Amino acid sequence: MEITTEKPYVIGLDMGGTNSIFGIVDQRGTIKAQTAIKTAAYPRIEDYVKAAAEALQPALDVVGGIENIRGMGIGAPNANYYTGNIEDAANLVWKGIVPVAALFEEALGIPVRVTNDANAAAMGEMTYGVARGMKNFIMITLGTGVGSGIVVDGKVVYGSDGFAGELGHVIVDHSPEARSCGCGRCGCLETYCSATGVARTAREFLSRSAEPSKLRELNPDDITSFDVYQAAEAGDDMAVRIFDYTGRILGAACADFAAFSSPEAFVFFGGLTKAGEYLMAPLRRAYEENILFVYRGKAKLLVSSLNGSEAAVLGASALGWE
Amino acid sequence: MEITTEKPYVIGLDMGGTNSIFGIVDQRGTIKAQTAIKTAAYPRIEDYVKAAAEALQPALDVVGGIENIRGMGIGAPNANYYTGNIEDAANLVWKGIVPVAALFEEALGIPVRVTNDANAAAMGEMTYGVARGMKNFIMITLGTGVGSGIVVDGKVVYGSDGFAGELGHVIVDHSPEARSCGCGRCGCLETYCSATGVARTAREFLSRSAEPSKLRELNPDDITSFDVYQAAEAGDDMAVRIFDYTGRILGAACADFAAFSSPEAFVFFGGLTKAGEYLMAPLRRAYEENILFVYRGKAKLLVSSLNGSEAAVLGASALGWE
Repeated sequence: MEITTEKPYVIGLDMGGTNSIFGIVDQRGTIKAQTAIKTAAYPRIEDYVKAAAEALQPALDVVGGIENIRGMGIGAPNANYYTGNIEDAANLVWKGIVPVAALFEEALGIPVRVTNDANAAAMGEMTYGVARGMKNFIMITLGTGVGSGIVVDGKVVYGSDGFAGELGHVIVDHSPEARSCGCGRCGCLETYCSATGVARTAREFLSRSAEPSKLRELNPDDITSFDVYQAAEAGDDMAVRIFDYTGRILGAACADFAAFSSPEAFVFFGGLTKAGEYLMAPLRRAYEENILFVYRGKAKLLVSSLNGSEAAVLGASALGWE
Repeated sequence: MEITTEKPYVIGLDMGGTNSIFGIVDQRGTIKAQTAIKTAAYPRIEDYVKAAAEALQPALDVVGGIENIRGMGIGAPNANYYTGNIEDAANLVWKGIVPVAALFEEALGIPVRVTNDANAAAMGEMTYGVARGMKNFIMITLGTGVGSGIVVDGKVVYGSDGFAGELGHVIVDHSPEARSCGCGRCGCLETYCSATGVARTAREFLSRSAEPSKLRELNPDDITSFDVYQAAEAGDDMAVRIFDYTGRILGAACADFAAFSSPEAFVFFGGLTKAGEYLMAPLRRAYEENILFVYRGKAKLLVSSLNGSEAAVLGASALGWE
């Protein structure tokens, strides 16, 4: 994405169910000033926007005021790029259709774009991260769930309704043993390859055998993907195999995704990527084993270079340059 | 796609391994004149292009000459939209990289675009067919193999290398019993949902039980999808279940594809669509059963409206308007 503007900054808003974090960002992806408010403290969206505008003022002063801001981008759950609305977000206090872009445009007098977290992450990678200069790549976010942002020809794919790119809900297991998913169906990629999916795999592996493992010292219901990572680091065989299982499913799924858009790269982001080669080595192997010959050796499998705590704000801010 | 031009016609070339069919097409998708040459009769591509230009002359005279032609589109195996080349096509006499667009541009003095058959079919539907006016849809061609052309934001997705959109090679069965595919892997969609896939299913169903079926009157190795269709029409239970099995796999796969680009429609084209509701009813049912809630009830599942024998030429010609 080429950036040409007289106004040197954008605002990024990472809107979560609990906190809303605002950053003022320059063209290199440096956050020049930051502020935050509690999302859930404002039952009326109008009050939230007012509080946000007030909280932003000192941050705006740092960069010379709103006249130096080109635009604002918001990453929020169920945010629809086409309409500028948040639509029926389960994790937010505001119900139904919330015209968040229009309200911020009115309050701040600058263009505002919204999208969901994974699409914002893709924008962030394309603007400031490892996907800079790429026109075709697929962002995969590995957190509590699995999200995705698909970039084709330099633009995020929004599809007919603004909700394209839900690769976490591609079904990778059609068997009767497939895991049930929060979406109401079974066998979705995210039931295996999210942080919670890794914990489920750990519980399954523990219950299926009596093999010794450090993970047995924990209450099975409390096991997290980080516990599995620590066990792997301590040389625990089962923990290593849990990531192997996870990486192989994800790698095979990505090989299928390549048949869709033949990307230059897959970019992985989120807590699970901290597992490093425990996850990435089997992922790469499964990708190469499953990829169609015409795509073989083409796509890079990359881990995001953005600072985890800043990435969401940076990703949202990237929309502000559009 | 909006068509605004002083020049009212385009040339479409449907290049197959045996025959090359040329059509001169107007903006409504009417073929005004047609001609053909034998593809395999010209071991040198230069001679092929020369013969094509000569064969085209009488057809061009019908529409007032080359000055009334806006451009030419070629649908050919392994044709790369980005480069204008045919690359290592197994079914053509010319080996390696063949600069077919450049050669035709030189011979005819008009812009020439190339793409593969399934992408050409998508262009044809968008320009003259059931996808007219749509900006997001997925074309699925059900012939000897399964091909696809994916349209996002009004443009065919070509990806990083020109070869995006090979949904026939998405793996729908990862089990050890998955069918082997011509691509060297196992479990590809096209091993189940192509015309040859239907014939394989018939042989499997016949060998697995002793259930009576009209299909037993045929040599198993000679069974075609058309035989299965005729048996279904004659009330044969097994034949109906063969299409049911095929449609269910295809419907579930399309539900996954929706998670990628959230299309307005899927458009099915090719010999297998002649099976009509035997295929489409289970396809629709499986799609609805497998679709993620956010996409539910959104995409239409349509059968191409283009005349089968003209569709390939029309699809190719659609590229000529670009």
